Amino acid sequence: MAMGYFNPYFIKRRAKKWWPYFGLFLLLVIGYQEGVLRSDSSSGSYTTVDESSRSTMKEIFALEREIKLLKSVLKKYSIPEAEYADTLLPIIYVITPTYSRPHQKAELTRLMSVFLHVPSLHWILVEDATHKSKLVMNFLESSGLSYTHLHQSTPPDWKLQDNDPSWRKPRGVLQRNAGIKWLRRKLRGDRDPRGVVYFADDDNTYSTELFKEMRDTKTVSVWPVGLVGGVMVERPLVSRTATPHVMGWMTGWRPDRTFATDMAGFAVNLALLLRRSDAEFSFTSSIGRMESDFLEKLVTLSQLEPKADLCTKVLVWHTRTERPNMKDEERLRKAGTPSDQGIEV
Amino acid sequence: MAMGYFNPYFIKRRAKKWWPYFGLFLLLVIGYQEGVLRSDSSSGSYTTVDESSRSTMKEIFALEREIKLLKSVLKKYSIPEAEYADTLLPIIYVITPTYSRPHQKAELTRLMSVFLHVPSLHWILVEDATHKSKLVMNFLESSGLSYTHLHQSTPPDWKLQDNDPSWRKPRGVLQRNAGIKWLRRKLRGDRDPRGVVYFADDDNTYSTELFKEMRDTKTVSVWPVGLVGGVMVERPLVSRTATPHVMGWMTGWRPDRTFATDMAGFAVNLALLLRRSDAEFSFTSSIGRMESDFLEKLVTLSQLEPKADLCTKVLVWHTRTERPNMKDEERLRKAGTPSDQGIEV
Repeated sequence: MAMGYFNPYFIKRRAKKWWPYFGLFLLLVIGYQEGVLRSDSSSGSYTTVDESSRSTMKEIFALEREIKLLKSVLKKYSIPEAEYADTLLPIIYVITPTYSRPHQKAELTRLMSVFLHVPSLHWILVEDATHKSKLVMNFLESSGLSYTHLHQSTPPDWKLQDNDPSWRKPRGVLQRNAGIKWLRRKLRGDRDPRGVVYFADDDNTYSTELFKEMRDTKTVSVWPVGLVGGVMVERPLVSRTATPHVMGWMTGWRPDRTFATDMAGFAVNLALLLRRSDAEFSFTSSIGRMESDFLEKLVTLSQLEPKADLCTKVLVWHTRTERPNMKDEERLRKAGTPSDQGIEV
Repeated sequence: MAMGYFNPYFIKRRAKKWWPYFGLFLLLVIGYQEGVLRSDSSSGSYTTVDESSRSTMKEIFALEREIKLLKSVLKKYSIPEAEYADTLLPIIYVITPTYSRPHQKAELTRLMSVFLHVPSLHWILVEDATHKSKLVMNFLESSGLSYTHLHQSTPPDWKLQDNDPSWRKPRGVLQRNAGIKWLRRKLRGDRDPRGVVYFADDDNTYSTELFKEMRDTKTVSVWPVGLVGGVMVERPLVSRTATPHVMGWMTGWRPDRTFATDMAGFAVNLALLLRRSDAEFSFTSSIGRMESDFLEKLVTLSQLEPKADLCTKVLVWHTRTERPNMKDEERLRKAGTPSDQGIEV
């Protein structure tokens, strides 16, 4: 447990002061054992385990909050990040296509709240536009996240029309590819790029646990996605064997696709993605096959890594936000007095 | 676990003399407990508890190491300690009505991500149901938040029917009142209750800044709400005088209401709410007047505190999530093979 404390370099460097840390360590060990002891002595009931893990969770969140506070102070005083950056974790590169609409900032704000809980995350936000918008620029600048802001417009022929159903045309294709290209360019020459790439649309709902699950992806990791494809949950079917592997898919629509997963249901190892220089998304994929065509360039079914307790937990939901009612706004605009004059929504 | 022991100042102050002895003492205690443990560990379920709490301990160690590192950098750059010292903040009590639907857990997960960024927040989650659901119970338990879980069902006559427009009947009335009642009961006898009460529906989008703004509410504080009432933003009109105050409202619908604000647009001082024992929401409020009727029991217009840079910033959005398409799910249910069998969505 926490062998870092017994690392000879650590001890040498801190020789004079190591007793307090050792004491601290012992205190925690005792605390932990007390927890175990208590849970063991409660005859068959899980209540105590629950309670002790609940209070541990509280402790963890309190510590995380403290870290956030300390980091915000460091930012405020413009202390270089290299002084305190976490360099040990593989970076999660999240690629998100986004486009202008009344609820864009609300959606991005929700993503931000989740991403701020995830250490070593770099957000590549790609606007479907001919230039970067001021709204997104300001939003990212004040977000406190590590990010890259790109733009890449979709040719008009390929855009969804207002009355098209959402599946009519593949969306975000060029934007996701712009994100991938940026990674290829940035990491060219990096012999051992450590990291994970995840494609996160801006309207889905993500839990923070999801990012813990994908962090150590070696090829392509997969998990269930809630509220997608006309069913409550779509998920990989995992064999209950000594070395569990993905055997197929449980979906409402075409489970016979090689990789019958939604965009939100997988993450790719960074080095693998960079090595396969032809791996990108395509407009020519037939309807509902964009993800499968992309993954076929990277792995075979048997190479997939099932995550989220062997695909038994839902940690991401394919939610969609209603287009807000702008009935009165149209009237105000015609009268030359829009409600958002001088205020960004 | 008493966090005071981990306070670095505590450690530093005492470090020089007594830690070695204390450490030795702890070693002996552990030795004793190890003995006890080993004789207990014959039960099969023991391993899992052991491993999961060991990895949690690792996480705690890692977090504490990070805090230590961050504090040492802050010291190195001589940043005043007051900047990052913990203070006693007034508690923000957030009252949220919720009800069962396919995307309930997704919505609650989004709220959780925001609330976890907010120190001193207590979440009062009130289910519109005849009993507490397992889903919400488990969700709250593992959330890491401080919370109270209540339930209060709405009589069938007062429930919205599937085809009713959402404004047809006031929603969440009894649930919000149940939250208020819980506060009155819990804090009875508290002579100086410090805190704020906010009514946060489970589909809106909240920024973390919003909670900073409402924290020191003395009467009732107000701010703009985005994407509501058929316009981009509704907001209080604030005088540009030496002592700025709210003069009226900019809304698409009935700006002549005394308090023409959405539920998401205000917070109430806790002591004030407790003092006005008749302040609660009413089914008999006419359409769109529930908030105004409630606030009339608490303040006058001139007593309102304009927040969010004198109501020039949007920190909360009245978003609504689409009912997910469950077309194929219905088919699966009829066939007796629902997609969410054995997996919570």
